[in-house]
Amino acid sequence: MIYDHFFSAALARLHEERRYRVFADLERIAGRFPHAIWHSPDGPRPVVIWCSNDYLGMGQHPKVIGAMVETATRMGAGAGGTRNISGTNHPLVELERELADLHGKEAALVFTSGYVSNETGIATIAKLLPNCVIFADALNHNSMIEGVRRAGVEKKIWCHNDVNHLEDLLAGAPPDRPKLIVFEALYSMDGDVAPVNRICDLAQRYGAMTYIDEVHSAGMYGPRGSGIAARDGALHRIDVVEGTLAKAFGCLGGYIAGSADVIDAVRSYAPGFIFTTALPPAICAAATAAIRHLKTSQWERDRHQNRAARVKAVLNAAGLPVMPSETHIVPVMVGDPEKCKEATDLLLAEYGIYVQPINYPTVPRGPNGCALRRRLITITC
Amino acid sequence: MIYDHFFSAALARLHEERRYRVFADLERIAGRFPHAIWHSPDGPRPVVIWCSNDYLGMGQHPKVIGAMVETATRMGAGAGGTRNISGTNHPLVELERELADLHGKEAALVFTSGYVSNETGIATIAKLLPNCVIFADALNHNSMIEGVRRAGVEKKIWCHNDVNHLEDLLAGAPPDRPKLIVFEALYSMDGDVAPVNRICDLAQRYGAMTYIDEVHSAGMYGPRGSGIAARDGALHRIDVVEGTLAKAFGCLGGYIAGSADVIDAVRSYAPGFIFTTALPPAICAAATAAIRHLKTSQWERDRHQNRAARVKAVLNAAGLPVMPSETHIVPVMVGDPEKCKEATDLLLAEYGIYVQPINYPTVPRGPNGCALRRRLITITC
Repeated sequence: MIYDHFFSAALARLHEERRYRVFADLERIAGRFPHAIWHSPDGPRPVVIWCSNDYLGMGQHPKVIGAMVETATRMGAGAGGTRNISGTNHPLVELERELADLHGKEAALVFTSGYVSNETGIATIAKLLPNCVIFADALNHNSMIEGVRRAGVEKKIWCHNDVNHLEDLLAGAPPDRPKLIVFEALYSMDGDVAPVNRICDLAQRYGAMTYIDEVHSAGMYGPRGSGIAARDGALHRIDVVEGTLAKAFGCLGGYIAGSADVIDAVRSYAPGFIFTTALPPAICAAATAAIRHLKTSQWERDRHQNRAARVKAVLNAAGLPVMPSETHIVPVMVGDPEKCKEATDLLLAEYGIYVQPINYPTVPRGPNGCALRRRLITITC
Repeated sequence: MIYDHFFSAALARLHEERRYRVFADLERIAGRFPHAIWHSPDGPRPVVIWCSNDYLGMGQHPKVIGAMVETATRMGAGAGGTRNISGTNHPLVELERELADLHGKEAALVFTSGYVSNETGIATIAKLLPNCVIFADALNHNSMIEGVRRAGVEKKIWCHNDVNHLEDLLAGAPPDRPKLIVFEALYSMDGDVAPVNRICDLAQRYGAMTYIDEVHSAGMYGPRGSGIAARDGALHRIDVVEGTLAKAFGCLGGYIAGSADVIDAVRSYAPGFIFTTALPPAICAAATAAIRHLKTSQWERDRHQNRAARVKAVLNAAGLPVMPSETHIVPVMVGDPEKCKEATDLLLAEYGIYVQPINYPTVPRGPNGCALRRRLITITC
């Protein structure tokens, strides 16, 4: 049997549907954020990255690079093992303390990515709750969907940000069954925000546990960059906060924060945590430096919001279809995947502006066969 | 509902079964491998790590740290996005080329961890093969088990390293069904090696695709450190090689290598690859430095084998229950989890030797309720 036929056929389907992706080979330039070199098929070219998740440029902050370089020099590159078998390194322990403090929780646990945090975190929490039912927002990220799926428990999907629908579903579940509400603080494709307090009201009324994903908001919103739940005064009502070190904090890895018991239980039972190598000490030290900086510095957040607002205003004035959003996300709805690709190709070729067209499966297919978003990020540090 | 009760009950079960784990908080010292500082409850103490997966000390090699420091200084800490959205960085592209070359394949794909490589790699490959049946070794790592589970296809488990059993199962499956054989090159708990060529013979006879996990052997065996399949002259018979950058290469991340089509298909379809932030450029550059070094330097491999053999000899001479193994893994079977913990506590307290007792769920429960292994690694660089 010639197996490559199956894989080439799968690739042909993507080409036919015009959703085969080519990755841009980029070389960022520390100190010149958001400038980069694009290693194009025709050779290297300078570009400006308009779609980075390193929202505040912290990945290039001298404190962050300094911590990374110093720690790598002193402790080496990798952690050398899983958390249980020699991989727990001191900067990782310090990072977990810093994250617990950031979100006002008793403890935190670091994973190799935000994806893994959600996937193994949600699954493990739900499995430890006997006969649990999960209530998930319809637009949750793929990592949360996978976490819910792997939990293997009953799930109810509530219409995106619709608390009335959520209440209907909660009211329909037996009062004595454990319930877990899983949602995002800030949805990165449309830039809209969850009604956190109203969700917490329902959680309280129906005795549900709350799990919030703050990957696009931790470091970016709230006092000390603690996120949307903190900004809305709802942090104490949230049981588990999940976040990433790879966006506003400019590094790599993900985490959850919560009570000492829930964190210790996930630490002890989650396969995606137990059986994988710990984050390198230098990455942990760099992330800690970013978090500490953003706990006390409001400047980056203010400037970033200011720049995002300006981009929205300029695009609106030019008559471009900017979707309304109250956050730093600037979604431009093109609606047609071919035209969106054409526009971004033109921006790159003519103006050196690199912005990635977003299509299925990152966003659902829309009424015109495809819903596309573009996200523009413009802060320079 | 007070949810912490469920989590504290789950923790109480671990305490009752004496398998609650406490992680050792370690600080490795670059240039003094395998020495480290243990941040013990009574304060910092010098220890020697006997159970690192940084087998060859490459995580502290000057070339590796040098590449990491240089790249972090030049390009910053994190990648800043997913592979598709601004995260594909030039050192990552170079690393993938290096890995393809290492395993003699057309292409390679890097993931955030070896765990994720197996989990999303196996699942994606199997899902792209219509009506596929997976044949998995009974002692495969948890990440492979999760990958097989997530594939959602029929699976057959063959007794560990038993090619007769594998043949029975293959012969029992319809000839026209796609078949995927999934196994490890080197099993890290017992230190035994798969009969790679005999498995490939069967794959050829029954038209199956082969997927080998070389996480404990890449960098360690074969010419240029290409692994066990290369050592046994079977690399060209393997369809997909999976490996890690976090063990012999001393960094972080995982990968698969194979034909251009299979790699491109996994790149295009695997959720655990698509929806997660790319590895930082500095980590990629460090891994590339380690791979390049180990492609030409045999010294580390020879010395490591020599030291492992010496440890086995010394332990055997002392009458300790060393399990026979043909590899660098030195499993000491204690059999009783309490005694194993007691022995390792004593080694740490009295001799500053840190070796982690391995118990369930990393190894299955044995006839005495628990099968324990210890792995001793002794090379110094």
